[in-house]
Amino acid sequence: MKSAIIGGTGYGAVELVRLLDKHPNIELVKVISNSQSGTDIQDVYPHLSNILNIQLSELNIQSLCEEVDVVFFATPAGVSKEYIPELHKQGVKCIDLSGDFRLKNPQNYETWYGKSSAETTYLEKATYGLSEIYGDDIKNSEIIANPGCYPTAALLGLIPAINNKMIDPKTIIIDGKSGVSGAGRGVSLNTHYSEINENLKAYKLGQHQHIPEIEQAIEWSAAAVAAASANHAELESIPVSFSTHLTPMTRGIMCTMYAQLTDPSSATVSAFIEHYESFYESHPFVRIRPEGTWPSTKEVSGSNYCDIGFQVDARTGRVTIVSVIDNLMKGAAGQAVQNLNLMNGWDVQMGLTDIPMYP
Amino acid sequence: MKSAIIGGTGYGAVELVRLLDKHPNIELVKVISNSQSGTDIQDVYPHLSNILNIQLSELNIQSLCEEVDVVFFATPAGVSKEYIPELHKQGVKCIDLSGDFRLKNPQNYETWYGKSSAETTYLEKATYGLSEIYGDDIKNSEIIANPGCYPTAALLGLIPAINNKMIDPKTIIIDGKSGVSGAGRGVSLNTHYSEINENLKAYKLGQHQHIPEIEQAIEWSAAAVAAASANHAELESIPVSFSTHLTPMTRGIMCTMYAQLTDPSSATVSAFIEHYESFYESHPFVRIRPEGTWPSTKEVSGSNYCDIGFQVDARTGRVTIVSVIDNLMKGAAGQAVQNLNLMNGWDVQMGLTDIPMYP
Amino acid sequence: MKSAIIGGTGYGAVELVRLLDKHPNIELVKVISNSQSGTDIQDVYPHLSNILNIQLSELNIQSLCEEVDVVFFATPAGVSKEYIPELHKQGVKCIDLSGDFRLKNPQNYETWYGKSSAETTYLEKATYGLSEIYGDDIKNSEIIANPGCYPTAALLGLIPAINNKMIDPKTIIIDGKSGVSGAGRGVSLNTHYSEINENLKAYKLGQHQHIPEIEQAIEWSAAAVAAASANHAELESIPVSFSTHLTPMTRGIMCTMYAQLTDPSSATVSAFIEHYESFYESHPFVRIRPEGTWPSTKEVSGSNYCDIGFQVDARTGRVTIVSVIDNLMKGAAGQAVQNLNLMNGWDVQMGLTDIPMYP
Amino acid sequence: MKSAIIGGTGYGAVELVRLLDKHPNIELVKVISNSQSGTDIQDVYPHLSNILNIQLSELNIQSLCEEVDVVFFATPAGVSKEYIPELHKQGVKCIDLSGDFRLKNPQNYETWYGKSSAETTYLEKATYGLSEIYGDDIKNSEIIANPGCYPTAALLGLIPAINNKMIDPKTIIIDGKSGVSGAGRGVSLNTHYSEINENLKAYKLGQHQHIPEIEQAIEWSAAAVAAASANHAELESIPVSFSTHLTPMTRGIMCTMYAQLTDPSSATVSAFIEHYESFYESHPFVRIRPEGTWPSTKEVSGSNYCDIGFQVDARTGRVTIVSVIDNLMKGAAGQAVQNLNLMNGWDVQMGLTDIPMYP
Repeated sequence: MKSAIIGGTGYGAVELVRLLDKHPNIELVKVISNSQSGTDIQDVYPHLSNILNIQLSELNIQSLCEEVDVVFFATPAGVSKEYIPELHKQGVKCIDLSGDFRLKNPQNYETWYGKSSAETTYLEKATYGLSEIYGDDIKNSEIIANPGCYPTAALLGLIPAINNKMIDPKTIIIDGKSGVSGAGRGVSLNTHYSEINENLKAYKLGQHQHIPEIEQAIEWSAAAVAAASANHAELESIPVSFSTHLTPMTRGIMCTMYAQLTDPSSATVSAFIEHYESFYESHPFVRIRPEGTWPSTKEVSGSNYCDIGFQVDARTGRVTIVSVIDNLMKGAAGQAVQNLNLMNGWDVQMGLTDIPMYP
Repeated sequence: MKSAIIGGTGYGAVELVRLLDKHPNIELVKVISNSQSGTDIQDVYPHLSNILNIQLSELNIQSLCEEVDVVFFATPAGVSKEYIPELHKQGVKCIDLSGDFRLKNPQNYETWYGKSSAETTYLEKATYGLSEIYGDDIKNSEIIANPGCYPTAALLGLIPAINNKMIDPKTIIIDGKSGVSGAGRGVSLNTHYSEINENLKAYKLGQHQHIPEIEQAIEWSAAAVAAASANHAELESIPVSFSTHLTPMTRGIMCTMYAQLTDPSSATVSAFIEHYESFYESHPFVRIRPEGTWPSTKEVSGSNYCDIGFQVDARTGRVTIVSVIDNLMKGAAGQAVQNLNLMNGWDVQMGLTDIPMYP
Repeated sequence: MKSAIIGGTGYGAVELVRLLDKHPNIELVKVISNSQSGTDIQDVYPHLSNILNIQLSELNIQSLCEEVDVVFFATPAGVSKEYIPELHKQGVKCIDLSGDFRLKNPQNYETWYGKSSAETTYLEKATYGLSEIYGDDIKNSEIIANPGCYPTAALLGLIPAINNKMIDPKTIIIDGKSGVSGAGRGVSLNTHYSEINENLKAYKLGQHQHIPEIEQAIEWSAAAVAAASANHAELESIPVSFSTHLTPMTRGIMCTMYAQLTDPSSATVSAFIEHYESFYESHPFVRIRPEGTWPSTKEVSGSNYCDIGFQVDARTGRVTIVSVIDNLMKGAAGQAVQNLNLMNGWDVQMGLTDIPMYP
Repeated sequence: MKSAIIGGTGYGAVELVRLLDKHPNIELVKVISNSQSGTDIQDVYPHLSNILNIQLSELNIQSLCEEVDVVFFATPAGVSKEYIPELHKQGVKCIDLSGDFRLKNPQNYETWYGKSSAETTYLEKATYGLSEIYGDDIKNSEIIANPGCYPTAALLGLIPAINNKMIDPKTIIIDGKSGVSGAGRGVSLNTHYSEINENLKAYKLGQHQHIPEIEQAIEWSAAAVAAASANHAELESIPVSFSTHLTPMTRGIMCTMYAQLTDPSSATVSAFIEHYESFYESHPFVRIRPEGTWPSTKEVSGSNYCDIGFQVDARTGRVTIVSVIDNLMKGAAGQAVQNLNLMNGWDVQMGLTDIPMYP
């Protein structure tokens, strides 16, 4: 299968390059960057010297459709929605790492991204690619809206508990902490070394564009629970508190999440562990930590794992769920490859078997 | 006034050395370290070379009482409670940076610290030294239980809102994040560079010994509010959710705190700002951030400031309060000097006027 | 005395602000930034909130001359040379942290900086402000060319050995390593957090504009030695090897320097220590390390110290000299204030007594 | 082929685990750690959870000989020399990541390591495993002394120039800079986070045990050159200056090396590049940088590459050579696997094709 990456000079793209290069069923034939077309990729990223012989090229949709079977978009918001309809018409599969097709309600996109949304027809065709949760839909989809980094960490940690009615979804608070690579390669004072090193910053409190994405999936889960237990399946709005912090490290996201237990008197850490292990039994990339231990971001660095640990507090009637991923892997390029595997019926771990790099 | 530091080779002690050296009203005459007595302090801390000419000495309570007017304890839990009674009897003021005298309920100390508590008589004599909140008591006290680093950041951010009934104290969730110097200078795998660098770790979830300290002050505030508005002043137990995270930086603590607004329909960030600015009007070390901005730890590094910012979310009915300090300064040595100033009726900023070191 | 800073939003300027604020003999009345004039400095640097009440202003030479006695330039190359002549004519003292007046040979400036040089008259009036070495000239000067950060660390480590003929100046190799704040606050891919963190980069090998500055002072010393011992004082060109490396930290410069011993058979570390301690006896900011220990950058962080250590290797006939400074302090703002003290006959440590911030 | 690792809880070992797990021709059947035998490896290294099902076991040489074909030693100095003779007698191949078999002269080992040397017979049987240089010997050897991290970076950068008589080996100065993982997982104040973060330290100047290892290979090369050009092949002692620095990062080593050019008037960077590219033509893990650029450690992170760049300075008659590796990969586990491939006649890149992890 032949593939192309659009947006070829960002960190998401270069992580895709690293993964596709070792994927046995995929050939990477084109890396597209309008801003640097004509340049050898190793001049932009010297770590690729002597490994890849790729010249960055300009986007030409028509020739792209002839050359490749699947396209990865690693572009800023507002780009993929312009090109995916045409690619889709011509039979090219699309995996979009940007936010353009994630929100089913166009108004939400317009509110949180400040841009006009993708066409509704294509929003409907696109599948929200949280691999472990929506795998069945992903298998039958040709457009994947690859989830954001924070939503991936948050939702993998929350959905099993919501589905099993262990927590009250209306009480969810998510304290997110990210490494700096999530902000991309574009220079700014907010990613300037001397401003970020030896510093911890809160940013975009209550304003992050990942909020509606997280809420949308929580609402789907809550509606499914309600539909199963009663007679209505209507979506109900479930706002969450979501705070984001910039941490002085390159890779890694941790979401520390708090929610009221539905049954505080009987809830235990071991019950959470047992439920989550069962829920993710056939999903090798989610690992559940033993009682009394919690994950750290370095333990998943460079890999597609999501590690989850719990604390149940009888005093407060709340559970604390800690979920970590590598934001460039499970939070971006890794999950994109996982979705590619799912779409093609390949082993979900194909090309993704690397052990985390530690230390 | 003459002073001594006990526990002279830890980071809290060496920060005290830095501050006392420039304090106009204090002379540092002794630095005590039983483990390294006889060694020149500059052999333990070469950054002090050519500045201080102090040899670490062994603890001798009797000679200490004759030589100094005030003693700072920068010792692990369980040490100061052995010596403060005798020092107090002999008229020496004590400022204890450890947790030995913070919890008024001895049972709490025994539960969370796993040691026998200080004598009740001395627990009662000791004043909890959160300078901005308990300044009047501190002025009249001769034993100060200097607060923990997390509690200082958390409580300065929460108490004004509790006092003014802006939040429901029973809904408080505190997500704490700390630099590594808070763990001290003792070596361990948890502070080993290659394990911590480029890593973010959750630790001691729901188990940190700062939990009862935070709850105690919240309960005092809530009881005062209840006493004022009704007819009972009894302390009610108010458990909080408190999580701690180790961040790859040396200095700094941030607490991101969540609570239900008592009046969600009318709450605004500007109302919080206005109340906090008024509350801290005569307290120069607390700075309130303008709407839409939040503090970062580097902005207080090396200084005694505590910076606080807010986000009010009408969607969830919650406020998010972000509070940052330098854990070795306002979270330890800086507040200890501030308390020394208060105890002596000196200007509260004496010896503490340094501008944060940025970048 | 009243002072102004020109170039007010860079790191050198904000470090000057920190120092001048606590200097007993100086009042800072103006911070000039054409690009951000009208903005409150605390909006650019929130760590200054509630401390300084300064609005950035536009440069107006005439009104400046009326208002202040001394001006600090913390500007990029090419700016100060336009304004210092006029300020000087009107009796305002100038301390220039840029490179405009450092090189006595205008051709050198033009070659290494790629710009036209300052006027020769003013180059001659300006004194190269390496405080410990040229203090007598500095005292009588009204224009100070404050040295570069690398040259300060390198020259303080080399000059005593050259002066005492302990090393052959023609064999000097300087391996320089710097923190990222030396690159300033201007954003670029070279100072982008994710590119620099967990990375060590060699840059500008043999091309750094500090090379002619280091060579100039070495040539002066070598010529003085030659003049003393023989009959010629002519300057001889003495090229040095100088390499620069970007280290993943904010502050700090280390120069590791190698040179052939003039008398390998009898040279010892203790002879170097003895000579350097004597050379710097009346210079409190230079500290010599005991045999078998070498300095580290954190041991001078936030202070004006330069720490120096030695290794003498009989096997190779070479000495290794390690010299460290805080690049924003002794390498920029700290030495500028030291020079201000010298120019005014004040205690050289005035306003500079801070203990290094450790850890 | 079946393999075991001895010394299973250090960083070298865990990096070997990462590599052997994906090596197509090797099965890892045993990880030995006397100190933690009986523990699951994932309890020591949680990042291995759900990936490897290995219990650490105690060393039993006899059963080891029956179970495995090759043993990797990732042990401190002094361990492998006790066991390799017996393993070798029983036909087990040994790759030793420690220093026990690197120095051919037992006296050197005793001087620099302070321990008694391995038996001379086995020192002679062991091949110094610098893969690109001694590949022919490695192919025919059954005991490999895997090189140290600093010597690997230094020698790959120096040997081609020595062999081609481009530099005078008696003038070599090596300024080495290492990440902290090179110090291993054993805790100490020198690897304590708060001491190392935001700090750059010079250590063991002129005393590092890698000095005789570097000199030995330089002397071999110089002797070969002498033998070819004249009539004597006797080893001549060639002392080098070698300084080591601890850099605030986990992985990575850079050696910046200086030497006198043998022909300064005609030497050029492009001549160096041309010679090195030709020298390493059939060696895929060494990459030569284009003129005007130099490598950085992150560009090889997680990979087995060694990247090299040059600066030729006509002014000083010296060349500067910059060489970088990942100390745990090409400087330890990666080169060990490369040597395993060479010993077995497999593709030298087998199991080592990972692209560096960037950023």
